[in-house]
Formats: sequence, structure tokens, C-alpha cells
Amino acid sequence: MKRHEESYRGKNVLITGGLGFIGSNLAIRLVELGANVTLVDSMLPLYGGNTFNIHPVRNRVRVNFSDIRDSASMNYLIQDQEYVFHLAGQVSHVDSILDPFGDVDININGTLSVLEACRKRNPRAKVIFTGTRGQYGSSVKLPVDENAPTNAKGIYAITNLAAEKMIMMYNEVHGVRGVCLRITNTYGPRHQMKHNRYGVVNWFLRLAMDDEIVPIMGDGTIQRDFLFVDDLIDALLLVGSREESFGEIFNLGTGVPTDFLTLGELVCHVAESGRCSFVPFSEERKQVEPGHYYADIGKIRSVLGWEPKTSLEEGLRRTYEYYRKHKSHYWTQENATKDGARHRSRLDNRDLGHQRVARAG
Amino acid sequence: MKRHEESYRGKNVLITGGLGFIGSNLAIRLVELGANVTLVDSMLPLYGGNTFNIHPVRNRVRVNFSDIRDSASMNYLIQDQEYVFHLAGQVSHVDSILDPFGDVDININGTLSVLEACRKRNPRAKVIFTGTRGQYGSSVKLPVDENAPTNAKGIYAITNLAAEKMIMMYNEVHGVRGVCLRITNTYGPRHQMKHNRYGVVNWFLRLAMDDEIVPIMGDGTIQRDFLFVDDLIDALLLVGSREESFGEIFNLGTGVPTDFLTLGELVCHVAESGRCSFVPFSEERKQVEPGHYYADIGKIRSVLGWEPKTSLEEGLRRTYEYYRKHKSHYWTQENATKDGARHRSRLDNRDLGHQRVARAG
Repeated sequence: MKRHEESYRGKNVLITGGLGFIGSNLAIRLVELGANVTLVDSMLPLYGGNTFNIHPVRNRVRVNFSDIRDSASMNYLIQDQEYVFHLAGQVSHVDSILDPFGDVDININGTLSVLEACRKRNPRAKVIFTGTRGQYGSSVKLPVDENAPTNAKGIYAITNLAAEKMIMMYNEVHGVRGVCLRITNTYGPRHQMKHNRYGVVNWFLRLAMDDEIVPIMGDGTIQRDFLFVDDLIDALLLVGSREESFGEIFNLGTGVPTDFLTLGELVCHVAESGRCSFVPFSEERKQVEPGHYYADIGKIRSVLGWEPKTSLEEGLRRTYEYYRKHKSHYWTQENATKDGARHRSRLDNRDLGHQRVARAG
Repeated sequence: MKRHEESYRGKNVLITGGLGFIGSNLAIRLVELGANVTLVDSMLPLYGGNTFNIHPVRNRVRVNFSDIRDSASMNYLIQDQEYVFHLAGQVSHVDSILDPFGDVDININGTLSVLEACRKRNPRAKVIFTGTRGQYGSSVKLPVDENAPTNAKGIYAITNLAAEKMIMMYNEVHGVRGVCLRITNTYGPRHQMKHNRYGVVNWFLRLAMDDEIVPIMGDGTIQRDFLFVDDLIDALLLVGSREESFGEIFNLGTGVPTDFLTLGELVCHVAESGRCSFVPFSEERKQVEPGHYYADIGKIRSVLGWEPKTSLEEGLRRTYEYYRKHKSHYWTQENATKDGARHRSRLDNRDLGHQRVARAG
């Protein structure tokens, strides 16, 4: 156990969105570190909550099914917590276009409900919040550091930005310590695999594992920064444990750009199935596509000494291994075939046909 | 009539918050310019809506009592508008501490409801939004330009910032043209005079006109930028009429710093009554007090050629003249005396007594 990880031994820790992708991975690590862990999850359909995610620690955590917008529940649950990892949120960019009011409600009112519970019932709680690189919108210069403009291109990103501003304000004005992370595309075990509304890496992996077409938009040269979830969990634990984190905003990522074609080919290579195919951008996608992004992680590296450790290939292998063993808990072949068929027929019906990409590996 | 003002002749213009301070002053000017003006106001108690505000044009505008959060109403009202001046909002910093969820609902969901109405029913509408200098929080350097960090110190300012981000995003992504103004403390005729939750200059004037104590917090050296409402209306009309405004954020102010003691003394001088007295900052006030602010107005000056024209003394005189004639529509002597008495007794009960300030003029 690293020194900073001892901060959590015997401590009360609340995780909102605790049955989701990041929350469940964090919960498992915190249980190993000896924390008393409470998970809050509202199990909204299409979101990431899955009771199987916490299977390894199911008897060693307290699970509370409630919504972060439920102030009474938050007031009660937060009153005796030392750490609040606030991970719950609406995370689908697509859904935020269809229902922008839902984003405001979950991401802003939900965060406010958590913060008000801290202010009123437990101002000594430390709040660790995960925002998104989407807050930057299109990158003005690369890599993107924390001082870059925040010209968010969707309600999802704007509501995350507003939540971040609230966390920082409660830290400064109300003395509720808070730290905000702007995280890049994260992938790994325990991510939902039911649909492609968010989480492109995991979705590519499902398609490849089902030997489907992995669709590469445009010419596949757009670059992103793909972070393995274990590295993210290391960062969350480090950030929460260090007093100098609070009041700060940190980028999280690898700092290494990878283009979508490389990603798709690597996924098919690791899965030993699937194949990449180019598809044109939809009009809607084109409007909100922010272009290249990779993070400047110099701040968290110099202030806290965090470094990501997992290469993309290694991370993909570990993700693949997880779903190879536990696939039935994440998607059924029936769904996959149906979704795949739908996907293929959509591709075939396009005016612009798709172009076969040479299979990697 | 100036050339740009001709843009409004015969055009349909909607003003949200239309019976309030800025909305009513704008409505009167637009009627003079020959626009077809519709005013939306929900007449929330303690807000600025007052039917007397539009007395001079009462038969030449359409008044619609509804809430900007009422999407059905917005969808219907916005469908045939060329210009939407979106001025409605929760504007009290004090109230945002007591009820932060109310701010989110009015300022964020309300703005979203206006924007969705444009997107769905009338994407050619031009939206002019008034935010606040509060979005900057404490000034990092003075004067403050539009690129300064936005470390808002309260929910009121954060919700305005989120609304601004939404306007800019709908402009960029959905093609609904929008422009955002970050306006400084504005004063003038038609501001509510019932309470001191917002609008310090008008409140000082009421106290002075009632020959009450004008409370100067701390040592009165904190500087602000006080803008006369007619200059603001000029800016709104100019900004709305020029295609190059859209997609931009502009500061509005005078660029001239004035400290609170100077303001208080000038107000008493103009009113020929009242007197200034120092009072200590409350703890709550101290936490959220952002310190000095005055705007760098170089951007709107160079892009659109706007300049404020009214000196503080001139603006105060015109404001005083308005309330001297129409005071009975804004506050009653009975209220004033009661409020004044309450105010005095609160001062007298403080541990730190207040200190008489030499009367200006």
C-alpha cells in the first residue's frame, strides 16, 4: 500500500454513481484499502449502474439506491462522511441534445444537492468531482492545459462546467473543500456495454468481440487521449488524500494522442476479431465534434506526482480479459446481433459507402 | 434616429423580464423606434416587474404574463420574433445563497427554455443576453477584460455564466444567433426600490431621498463601475442590430472606477438629503465580496463603436428626478420609515458602532 492510500483506512467514504464504471472500480480499491464505503446510485436506465460491477466486494460495501437530486437522502448519507467522490452524472453527449433539461437537473441540481448537504450537515467533508475534457470544447492549442478557454460545445459539457464552478465556489466561499478533475476518454472493465451513447473505446471493444464492423468516422485521423480506468482510480485516491489538491482543477489523461483509426485497429488486434470501416460523420456529429484533444498533465504531475502507468494496448488487453470472462453480465449475444444488424444496415443504406480498412495485426 | 436604430422599425421584438428595470427602459425606446414589442414577465414577488414602468407606452406594447421556464409559452411567443432580448433572471446575490436551486431553475432552465424555443420554432431569432460582471469573481487585474478568468463567487453568477455558455453554444452548434453582455452595476429610473437585495445605487438613492443613513461598508474604498441605464439601452440596441456581434461576449460598463464612499456622498448631494455612515462588513458579505471591479470596455468600443455618455452625477440626477415625480409607484413612506427604523436599530445594536461621514456637497 502506498503511503497516501493509508489516508482511507477506517475512513467513511461516499461514492455517488457508485455502481457505475468509475465508481465501482474505485469502490473495490477503497475496500482493499480498508475504507468504510457507501455507494449511492439511482440505477437510471441506460446509465452505467450495474450490481455485478461490485461483485468482488458486494458484502463489504453499503449500497444505497437513491438519486443525488434527493436532498433529504444526500443530507442523511453525507453527514458522517470524510470523503465524497462525486461521480454521478448524466454523461451522454447524445442524450444531452435530446433532453438538455435532464442534464441541468442531474448535473447541476444533483451537484448542488451534494454540496448543500456538505455545507449544512458536514462542512468538513472533502469533495472530489470528476468533470470532463468536453468543458474545453475545441482545443485552441495542443496539448490542452487547465488555463485553456472553456468553450464547451454541448449541454453535457456546460453542465459539468457549472458543477465544477459550484465545487470551486463552495470551496472558496463556504469552506467545503473540493477538487475538480477534467478527465479525458476513460475505458476499462465495468463500463456499460449496452449502447454507444458514450464510452467509445468500450463500445469499439464490444463490436470487435462480436466480430462486427468497428466504424471509424471521417478519415480516422482525429486524435484523442484514452485513459485506463486503473490509472484514473490512482489519481482519484491521490487527489483526495492530499490537502494541496483542494481548490484546484487538474487535467487527467495520458498526454499521449491516439487517432481513432489506430484505436480501432488496436481494439480489433487485441480482440482478435472485428474489422474497421470508415463511415462519414453525421451532420449532427460534425456540428459538435471538437476535433483533436490530448491533455497537458503537467500540473497534476508536478503538484501531486501522478503519472499514468498503463499503455493503451495493455489497458485494452485487461479490458478485453474482463469482458471475455464476464460478458454475460454486460451484454447478450441476442442484443449484440440485433444492434450489429441495425448498424450494418444503416451503413449499407448510406449514400457514401463505407471503405474497408486493412485489418491490423 | 441613429442608423442602427432603424433596424428595429416594424420588427417583432420580445423582451423577457420586460416589466423590470432594464426591460421596461428598453421597451420604451423600442416603441419610439417603431418596433412591435412583446413583453414577457412573471411578476415574481421581490423582483423588478412593475406595470407602472411601462406607463408611457402601455397602449403600444403587448404584455404577456408568463414565466420563461414555461416552455409552451416560450415556444408560442418566440415563434415570430426577430429579436429576443433575454433579460429575465434571478438577480439577487443574497437570494441565491438562501435558495441556490431557485437560481438554477430560473437562470439556467429559463434560458434553456428560451433557447430551445428558438431552436425548435424560430432558429432565425437573434438572442441578446445580459449576464453579469459577477461572472469574473475577484478581479485578477484591473480593468477587467473579457478574457479574464471566470471564478464566479456565487450561484447567481455561476448560473449566469452557464446561461452565457448555453447562448454561445446554441450560436455555434445550432445556428441560433446569440450575443452575451457582462454588465456592471447599472442604475437609473424604473429600478425596484422596495428592498436592498440588489441594485445598490438605487437603494442608496431611496435612503437618501428618505433622509436616512446611507450605509458604507468597510472603509468605503472598494471600487465599482456604475453604468446609467440609458447607456446600457444604447448598447443593447447597437449590439442587437449588428451581425458581427453574434457569437461574441462584450463587457459593458463605463470603465471608470468609483468607490462606495464617493458614490454615497454623491447620492446624498444629488438628493440634498441623507447622510453616509460606515458600517462593518457582515461575515457573509465578506466571504462573497469580490473587491474592486471596473470594466475594460475596449472590445465593444473597437468592434461596435459604443461609448457610455452619461456621467455618474448626471445619471444620478436623472434617476432622482424620476423618483421625485413617481416615488409613490415605487415605495411608500410607511415602508420607508419602517425599513429605515429597522435599519437604524440594526446599526445601533452592532458591537462596532457606525461612524459619521462628513456630508458631501
